[in-house]
Amino acid sequence: MAKTNNDEQFKNVISHAKEYGFVFQSSEIYDGLSAVYDYGQLGAELKNNIKTYWWKSMVQMHENIVGIDSAIFMHPKVWKASGHVDGFSDPMIDNKDSKKRYRADQLLEDKITRYEKDGKTDKAAKLQADMDEALKAENLPQLKVLIEEHEIACPVSGTKNWTDVRQFNLMFSTQFGAMAEGAEEVYLRPETAQGIFVNFLNVQKSGRMKIPFGIAQIGKAFRNEVIARQFIMRMREFEQMEMQFFVRPGEEMKWYAYWKEARLKWHTALGTDPAKYKYHDHAKLAHYANAAVDIEFEFPFGFKEVEGIHSRTDFDLKQHQEFSGKKMQYFDNDLNEDGKPYGNYIPYVIETSIGLDRMFLLTMIGAFEDQDLSDGEKTDSRIVLHLHPCLAPVKAAILPLTKKDGLPEKAQTIMDNLKLDYNVVYEEKDSIGKRYRRQDAIGTPFCITVDHQTLEDDTVTIRHRDSMEQQRIDIKDLEELIANKVSWKNLLRQI
Amino acid sequence: MAKTNNDEQFKNVISHAKEYGFVFQSSEIYDGLSAVYDYGQLGAELKNNIKTYWWKSMVQMHENIVGIDSAIFMHPKVWKASGHVDGFSDPMIDNKDSKKRYRADQLLEDKITRYEKDGKTDKAAKLQADMDEALKAENLPQLKVLIEEHEIACPVSGTKNWTDVRQFNLMFSTQFGAMAEGAEEVYLRPETAQGIFVNFLNVQKSGRMKIPFGIAQIGKAFRNEVIARQFIMRMREFEQMEMQFFVRPGEEMKWYAYWKEARLKWHTALGTDPAKYKYHDHAKLAHYANAAVDIEFEFPFGFKEVEGIHSRTDFDLKQHQEFSGKKMQYFDNDLNEDGKPYGNYIPYVIETSIGLDRMFLLTMIGAFEDQDLSDGEKTDSRIVLHLHPCLAPVKAAILPLTKKDGLPEKAQTIMDNLKLDYNVVYEEKDSIGKRYRRQDAIGTPFCITVDHQTLEDDTVTIRHRDSMEQQRIDIKDLEELIANKVSWKNLLRQI
Repeated sequence: MAKTNNDEQFKNVISHAKEYGFVFQSSEIYDGLSAVYDYGQLGAELKNNIKTYWWKSMVQMHENIVGIDSAIFMHPKVWKASGHVDGFSDPMIDNKDSKKRYRADQLLEDKITRYEKDGKTDKAAKLQADMDEALKAENLPQLKVLIEEHEIACPVSGTKNWTDVRQFNLMFSTQFGAMAEGAEEVYLRPETAQGIFVNFLNVQKSGRMKIPFGIAQIGKAFRNEVIARQFIMRMREFEQMEMQFFVRPGEEMKWYAYWKEARLKWHTALGTDPAKYKYHDHAKLAHYANAAVDIEFEFPFGFKEVEGIHSRTDFDLKQHQEFSGKKMQYFDNDLNEDGKPYGNYIPYVIETSIGLDRMFLLTMIGAFEDQDLSDGEKTDSRIVLHLHPCLAPVKAAILPLTKKDGLPEKAQTIMDNLKLDYNVVYEEKDSIGKRYRRQDAIGTPFCITVDHQTLEDDTVTIRHRDSMEQQRIDIKDLEELIANKVSWKNLLRQI
Repeated sequence: MAKTNNDEQFKNVISHAKEYGFVFQSSEIYDGLSAVYDYGQLGAELKNNIKTYWWKSMVQMHENIVGIDSAIFMHPKVWKASGHVDGFSDPMIDNKDSKKRYRADQLLEDKITRYEKDGKTDKAAKLQADMDEALKAENLPQLKVLIEEHEIACPVSGTKNWTDVRQFNLMFSTQFGAMAEGAEEVYLRPETAQGIFVNFLNVQKSGRMKIPFGIAQIGKAFRNEVIARQFIMRMREFEQMEMQFFVRPGEEMKWYAYWKEARLKWHTALGTDPAKYKYHDHAKLAHYANAAVDIEFEFPFGFKEVEGIHSRTDFDLKQHQEFSGKKMQYFDNDLNEDGKPYGNYIPYVIETSIGLDRMFLLTMIGAFEDQDLSDGEKTDSRIVLHLHPCLAPVKAAILPLTKKDGLPEKAQTIMDNLKLDYNVVYEEKDSIGKRYRRQDAIGTPFCITVDHQTLEDDTVTIRHRDSMEQQRIDIKDLEELIANKVSWKNLLRQI
């Protein structure tokens, strides 16, 4: 691989994503909308393929997991019950001169980093401890005291003229309905999980589900992030793939271990270097959890969370039972050790939650290679996306060697047959070499070249993306050769 | 079919959708959220299958159509340019006593209906003409005059104590970001089309698209409907499948005719009775259109729009060019009649726009049958969903005749093989007859029964949903028999 540092590599992936139609800045002609992105023609396909892989792995492969699609709008009480109305907020502080708003804890974090860089490790450790204590106690005035004591200035105005620290809720809200007496405030969901919890009984009863069972969902979620950065890593509008697995109380640790392992296997089955993944156990647990682990991936900017597996206890269902007044119980008529039915209980929950956009970014970064192809005589290189064939936006490109002699027509008949099965493209412009490179750059696993020999014996050249090897095969064998690589069946067998 | 009137039939479909996990009221445990629904475990599958059919038909089958996935949040100027900020509103009036708000034109419509019922056709016609004139002139005071003249009372308070008529915008808005000096107002998109228009150049350039070409998109849209009704027909949060086809100015009518025909073919290929569909040409055109037609379906409450095909001229791209200051032009180097390149122009657009939720409802209604199975001796009936096998949430049910003698284990091996390809379920509870009926009710095309003979000769009974016929076949032939019916390939061949 041509040598690049991590920053450069990340920049290269971002500009590649733009150039080839994977990801565009949202509303770019209006100079963009901060922390919002659009998926272009190849990005939409890649994203859909990741969704399909997840959905099939969860729903199709597990008899006891079903998928739902609940709305983004939910009753406001849902977010009271879940704790988001009261607790889903960041401590913010405004500079009175620049009128800029900052997360108080991030100003302090930046200061700690500066202390460390300057070798003032004692000061750094002290501030870290003081900040942690203030955050834990939700002591907002104390956060301001720390900002003032450590003489933190606004990066824009340079002044230390600060307002008080206030909580700022991360949920977007809107006005619902058109009642004259005042509309109802409704939130855009900040997570998809609650759509599963409130439908727990509906799904369990109408689907006659028996514990243990899971409910999966893919959908948009929204957070009014103050500082959004790192491309599609942290967006205001993003997509989650969440599964809540309902189990008998006391059996949650067994299932937690199961899903921890199963989810990592799902990732590595795609062929990404396993050394790029690691588990990160949560030392500090959220109030609803009794165990939690992140699956982290080594992005160019360090190991970051891609997926979380959380043992959420019965916290959410219990809260909804309390706030809705509806019993969120399950009757378990299996027999326990004493030969009696387990009876009624509120199930415990293991959650697996993955950020689809982060998974997309991970996939692009893991697949991207700026490959040196120089030999002794000449320098050469190519950009290639080593995407798993199941995820590749285009499965095959059909390329007539020239634009005449009936080669385009012959290529078209191959195209018309293959396109019934998957996405294929037809390209007749530029040299074959250039066309190969263009397909490498978008991750197309197969290029099929139609030449004059094809007209004589119905054979074509098939070129493999990763090895760049070419082989001559009969047209009638094409379908099976490609299907073997791009069909979900073989990938699903591995998980 | 057992005789039911239309109202009853509609109610039956709604309660069936709830009972079997197709559609639930949103946040039902909190007594629901008006005009918002959740898709349950079977509904999510059916909805996904409709999406897949549309996406494959558009993107996979057309070399010159690509799909994107743009964000719900867009720059506020987009909606200035599109006309939604100024024009996307309803005339509303409040009753001062009940504090209830109504659409002024709907109060008048109701009055017209009452006049007609009472045989006062002259009065009805006069009010209709007066109302049309006032609406056309956007004369809000005149609407109030008509309400007062015709002595319309609030259905709740019974009084005629009205406020003035005001415009009420149907877009939801929210506050974006956390700037101290006042956050930015951002709308939830009321249609997906604008996400395509603002990305027109990005897609055209990065994808090297040549006119004519299309950009397709599936996604959520939001409208603050005042009166939401008829189940999932008109929701505040809904999903659209839209395709914008960019053509040379002057060639739009050819492509309008093409898409008008192609879209109806897409519907009827699913096997729904073609007599239930009709075209409805728009007599009155929107300001941006020079031709428009609806594809209507005969719902139990009458023929209603499911899909629109609109010739939108160059209105949208021109508006975005004006508001963004960016050139929204395409350079066409094909040669015209005079042997010169067509050169630069703003393309014309043919739009196909279908409501996914309406398509879902149509599919449920078209498939639902309360079938009389009585013969001379006994009365019998079943509920069956005659879904196209490609759309069916579950493709096959595997049923061991009894729970013992190794039949469950044998059934499981069949299951483990088939589940790599598509959704299958395993059911061992209740009699075979009951299990068949349950699968009929959710539209499963095949039931596979494993009995004692299976253990001897590796054959099973396969039962067909619509004909209820049973045949004995080898297990090794199962995969192909089912694949022939449920694979997309054969359906896509027909469109």
